[in-house]
Amino acid sequence: MTRIDGRTADQLRPITIDRGWSKHAEGSVLISFGDTRVLCTASVTEGVPRWRKGSGKGWVTAEYAMLPRSTNTRGDRESVRGKIGGRTHEISRLIGRTLRAVVDYKALGENTVVLDCDVLQADGGTRTAAITGAYVALADAVAWAQEKKIIKSKAQPLTGTVAAVSVGIVDGKPLLDLCYEEDVRAETDMNVVCTGDGNFVEVQGTAEGEPFAREQLNELLDLSVQGCAQLDGAQRKALAG
Amino acid sequence: MTRIDGRTADQLRPITIDRGWSKHAEGSVLISFGDTRVLCTASVTEGVPRWRKGSGKGWVTAEYAMLPRSTNTRGDRESVRGKIGGRTHEISRLIGRTLRAVVDYKALGENTVVLDCDVLQADGGTRTAAITGAYVALADAVAWAQEKKIIKSKAQPLTGTVAAVSVGIVDGKPLLDLCYEEDVRAETDMNVVCTGDGNFVEVQGTAEGEPFAREQLNELLDLSVQGCAQLDGAQRKALAG
Amino acid sequence: MTRIDGRTADQLRPITIDRGWSKHAEGSVLISFGDTRVLCTASVTEGVPRWRKGSGKGWVTAEYAMLPRSTNTRGDRESVRGKIGGRTHEISRLIGRTLRAVVDYKALGENTVVLDCDVLQADGGTRTAAITGAYVALADAVAWAQEKKIIKSKAQPLTGTVAAVSVGIVDGKPLLDLCYEEDVRAETDMNVVCTGDGNFVEVQGTAEGEPFAREQLNELLDLSVQGCAQLDGAQRKALAG
Amino acid sequence: MTRIDGRTADQLRPITIDRGWSKHAEGSVLISFGDTRVLCTASVTEGVPRWRKGSGKGWVTAEYAMLPRSTNTRGDRESVRGKIGGRTHEISRLIGRTLRAVVDYKALGENTVVLDCDVLQADGGTRTAAITGAYVALADAVAWAQEKKIIKSKAQPLTGTVAAVSVGIVDGKPLLDLCYEEDVRAETDMNVVCTGDGNFVEVQGTAEGEPFAREQLNELLDLSVQGCAQLDGAQRKALAG
Amino acid sequence: MTRIDGRTADQLRPITIDRGWSKHAEGSVLISFGDTRVLCTASVTEGVPRWRKGSGKGWVTAEYAMLPRSTNTRGDRESVRGKIGGRTHEISRLIGRTLRAVVDYKALGENTVVLDCDVLQADGGTRTAAITGAYVALADAVAWAQEKKIIKSKAQPLTGTVAAVSVGIVDGKPLLDLCYEEDVRAETDMNVVCTGDGNFVEVQGTAEGEPFAREQLNELLDLSVQGCAQLDGAQRKALAG
Amino acid sequence: MTRIDGRTADQLRPITIDRGWSKHAEGSVLISFGDTRVLCTASVTEGVPRWRKGSGKGWVTAEYAMLPRSTNTRGDRESVRGKIGGRTHEISRLIGRTLRAVVDYKALGENTVVLDCDVLQADGGTRTAAITGAYVALADAVAWAQEKKIIKSKAQPLTGTVAAVSVGIVDGKPLLDLCYEEDVRAETDMNVVCTGDGNFVEVQGTAEGEPFAREQLNELLDLSVQGCAQLDGAQRKALAG
Repeated sequence: MTRIDGRTADQLRPITIDRGWSKHAEGSVLISFGDTRVLCTASVTEGVPRWRKGSGKGWVTAEYAMLPRSTNTRGDRESVRGKIGGRTHEISRLIGRTLRAVVDYKALGENTVVLDCDVLQADGGTRTAAITGAYVALADAVAWAQEKKIIKSKAQPLTGTVAAVSVGIVDGKPLLDLCYEEDVRAETDMNVVCTGDGNFVEVQGTAEGEPFAREQLNELLDLSVQGCAQLDGAQRKALAG
Repeated sequence: MTRIDGRTADQLRPITIDRGWSKHAEGSVLISFGDTRVLCTASVTEGVPRWRKGSGKGWVTAEYAMLPRSTNTRGDRESVRGKIGGRTHEISRLIGRTLRAVVDYKALGENTVVLDCDVLQADGGTRTAAITGAYVALADAVAWAQEKKIIKSKAQPLTGTVAAVSVGIVDGKPLLDLCYEEDVRAETDMNVVCTGDGNFVEVQGTAEGEPFAREQLNELLDLSVQGCAQLDGAQRKALAG
Repeated sequence: MTRIDGRTADQLRPITIDRGWSKHAEGSVLISFGDTRVLCTASVTEGVPRWRKGSGKGWVTAEYAMLPRSTNTRGDRESVRGKIGGRTHEISRLIGRTLRAVVDYKALGENTVVLDCDVLQADGGTRTAAITGAYVALADAVAWAQEKKIIKSKAQPLTGTVAAVSVGIVDGKPLLDLCYEEDVRAETDMNVVCTGDGNFVEVQGTAEGEPFAREQLNELLDLSVQGCAQLDGAQRKALAG
Repeated sequence: MTRIDGRTADQLRPITIDRGWSKHAEGSVLISFGDTRVLCTASVTEGVPRWRKGSGKGWVTAEYAMLPRSTNTRGDRESVRGKIGGRTHEISRLIGRTLRAVVDYKALGENTVVLDCDVLQADGGTRTAAITGAYVALADAVAWAQEKKIIKSKAQPLTGTVAAVSVGIVDGKPLLDLCYEEDVRAETDMNVVCTGDGNFVEVQGTAEGEPFAREQLNELLDLSVQGCAQLDGAQRKALAG
Repeated sequence: MTRIDGRTADQLRPITIDRGWSKHAEGSVLISFGDTRVLCTASVTEGVPRWRKGSGKGWVTAEYAMLPRSTNTRGDRESVRGKIGGRTHEISRLIGRTLRAVVDYKALGENTVVLDCDVLQADGGTRTAAITGAYVALADAVAWAQEKKIIKSKAQPLTGTVAAVSVGIVDGKPLLDLCYEEDVRAETDMNVVCTGDGNFVEVQGTAEGEPFAREQLNELLDLSVQGCAQLDGAQRKALAG
Repeated sequence: MTRIDGRTADQLRPITIDRGWSKHAEGSVLISFGDTRVLCTASVTEGVPRWRKGSGKGWVTAEYAMLPRSTNTRGDRESVRGKIGGRTHEISRLIGRTLRAVVDYKALGENTVVLDCDVLQADGGTRTAAITGAYVALADAVAWAQEKKIIKSKAQPLTGTVAAVSVGIVDGKPLLDLCYEEDVRAETDMNVVCTGDGNFVEVQGTAEGEPFAREQLNELLDLSVQGCAQLDGAQRKALAG
């Protein structure tokens, strides 16, 4: 079986990671997973939120949003509706949490990094592209702050790397990195966030149709680990470039 | 090693499921997992949301909330703050999604069931208690609607059962059904929702500290499946009682 | 004439006051007036709102809310609608105001007590049950804070007791403590808050149908004073128990 | 004893009722109780809110607000804060409820009257001035709608008249129609709404300081009935003018 | 051609400026441009917003709003809708900006003046009446603050005067100070704010129908400068009175 | 004198107009005025808002927003703050109004076009870039809808073209197309929207410092007309390409 777009089951879409996209942000990346394009910026500010003042520790947080016409049908702006939807909240929290997993707050010092992930075009996998891109933007922002002596510690604020990918069961078959059309038809949908050394930071699997068995879960985990390893390679290449 | 409250690693807290707690709701359950107490009500209304009208299909949705002093420190009311927080959104969506996994919308007919899960007292595992209790409230509400001929189909609207439990790694050891003190100290925290026949509806694992390895994930999944099976027994007993 | 539920005109519904219902709150009461059940918690925090800092005086405030399915028909959550309705505001203000009537702020010291009154099941008289229960929770919270030396004054922070009851004219007859069915049919509806020594803290009477004459008002006041005295007895008994 | 402004205990402030103040509204009144000035407009629209459609009955509702600098110290605009405060809600509900007490919905037909009461300058008694003025605006709007044949019934839509006044105990003495300075110092504060034939539509008494005894309540009621009778005269005169 | 209300093309409506309308505000004016009536109050507070503290400079800001029945058809209250509309925002910003154009912040010292412009009755030109009236209220408030030694500088805080007028092209003809009926039919609509010495503070012209040519723009500017000069005279007369 | 970036006073920054940037929108343009980059999408839906139904006429509206880190310092998201700021409202209204100036609603038929202008990177002139880009996106969307027979009229829905540019007085000299640094220092700031045949759709000039004289206004208008003509050329070239 070939997939809608001709890929094999364990094949990622073309990945591009365009660093330094914005002239203002301390770190910025336009990342694409196929037709999914997310602009990730990392903004450094000295100081931390009130509840963390005097702790000597930094903070990292994230906000995710979609442009209204990033999708096939135009969605209402959350600013116009006056409230943020549950899905947006959930993904913003996921991005922040998974990136904090590789941050040494002490080494960061009392500085805050805000990661903004804005989906310019959506075609499935926006949250996994956002995490993968945000890591690169974060790495650039940290390097910038080290050079500017805003981060003063000798210890590395980033203790590892993270990348994320979606996997799912479509027509009974496990597939890596679902595009929108596959995502819609998936019986099970899973997002996995791994560190560069292959451990898990987050595993979120949901039965959209039939509940899934343990062996299916295992197959999906295998695929995702392999996919994250490839993304880890793409991140390293971008950061080296 | 014994746990804070004397349990073994694979032992649930005392579970009580008190059906018919409210005189108004079509289904209602006061469920407790140890000191965690959640009031789950299922409200049946004829008709469905606008986007589903004329489809012949029903709808099930859920809302989760905590009373301000259900926790150790009083939290602000979300109604007073004028917006719902990300965590509340996330859990409400989780409850709705996992219960919809065992609903046959056609058999439900154009009727809506709203599941309200209000935490009266919190001591860890509020979302898993909510799901487990909401299933029983839903079953009662469906039975009521069948008796009242509001549900007219001969097919069963519920295609299975669901229960949920938390698991986590505390001090390097996998534990079942974390209480609040354990939850706070857990390195990895996972919520698992299973059907009565042991398949997965939802798996959400998060590294709060160190990323977790595949074998740890496997151990947690084993524990959770076993815990859900026990909860399934408690649900059946309650529904039979 | 007997009433819907067999009571005489001047008879309260069965009253229960269950202290220490919550393990977290400094004071907590599950109070019932017949089928009306309200969970009242009193939360003590050291310090006062900004506008009162440095005054040496404490503060007491209250928030009232109904669970969505505490009523016969499910109501929307105010947190979901993003704003608090007028009725909720009005009752929260009433509860806070009437309890403050028996508080000596100086003796309380710069401490704040928040009274949360959450209606778990509604059958008429929720605001009067809330006030009556909140008094007991407040008394427990004050005692706790005295024992913990958070309240340091030798003077008693509570200068009296308060209890509240509804009265109304149904089919031309004055009745005490209306249940929901009576409340809906009442031509005049009145809520009265009294101190334990029989004076008035608040009197709110409304003509729902015909305007009422002075003699009817007098009869209602007589009934309410008598009812509050009985509730005062129930409060004393609960606090003694 | 004379009062701050030289009045006797049972004397109203100078009352003016200026009809037809606005060229747009179907009924409009600028009412003043001393330095308190409230602009009351009555807006007629054909049709009723959705929940009342097809009932053959009309609807009357009210909204109260204060201009930001109607008071001694500027208050924030509720539109800017994005929510209506509890006091505003409470008074809007009071005005609507008390005016509905003299409306025959059937005779009004499926028409809606919205009463807007905007306080241009506040000096105590804004809610009672608003009710008293709104009655006159409502009467004018009803007459207009009858003339325009929007109201078609031969029955009178207004079954009586309403006026309102504040009373209170200041320095132990019952006083009629409190100005701001008296209001601030009042131990007990009461607002009373009467019909033109001297019955009660609403009685709201609150102990701001000491709880009040039955005889004090009686004295306040006596004063208020007498004050409402005078206001009733002022309304009749204005409507005749 | 004569206009709807008999004016010539370059004629203002009758202008009245009633100073000291409110007993509370430091400056207050009820201004009318024909049937348009706006209550402008200027509130002085010592201190400035947080972002300006310690600068030695003052601040002036404005808020504009319309009473719900100031217009021919009742509009919803922005406080009830929970948000301020774009038009309100735009006009509030315009008023604040144009009055700040004649303020010397240093001379004002660390004091804030809030200008509230509430439209009591609307008949076109509400924003221009608001600016013209707000200037007078501001001048009175500044004088008050100088007398009270709240403003301590010897320099004059007001460096000039401002007035505003609308102009437009109706049926191909440039007209000054449009009333509502003219405004609705205007092909081009322009609001111009001038200083007393005839320079421009703000020019906002919009093609409501056909785009306008340079010569039309010139004619409108000529009319507006002439109109502002007349308004400047009315302001001076009022302040002298 | 040369400008910060070496331009002459009447020189635009480099303009690029990248059509078809998004795969989803019916029209989409990434426009840049120097370092200012705005993504403009035009979304076509059949049908019109409720208040326009049955009129046979279409509707065009616009929404403008900035990504949080499009600016030098990160700004809060309006969706997170829960309300749209005045500036955003004002610019959204401006874009919609100026594009509607060249729309023949009858020819458009009962279809709606929403123009979303999202600033990806800001360096002055974001609103003028947005208008200029939105016109091209609108033209593409109209052409698409004509081809799909969604627009059925033979008449052209676009009756002209629009482009916009900023002008201002910096250090006493009139300059065309201000970049951020110039904008901040400008004494007078003006945005002008012209049609392709050189007439005005909107003129908005503001004195940020000194009020401006008639001759300065004339110089700015001259510059802007010339700049708009160049932008008109760039639009034609892009649409021809």
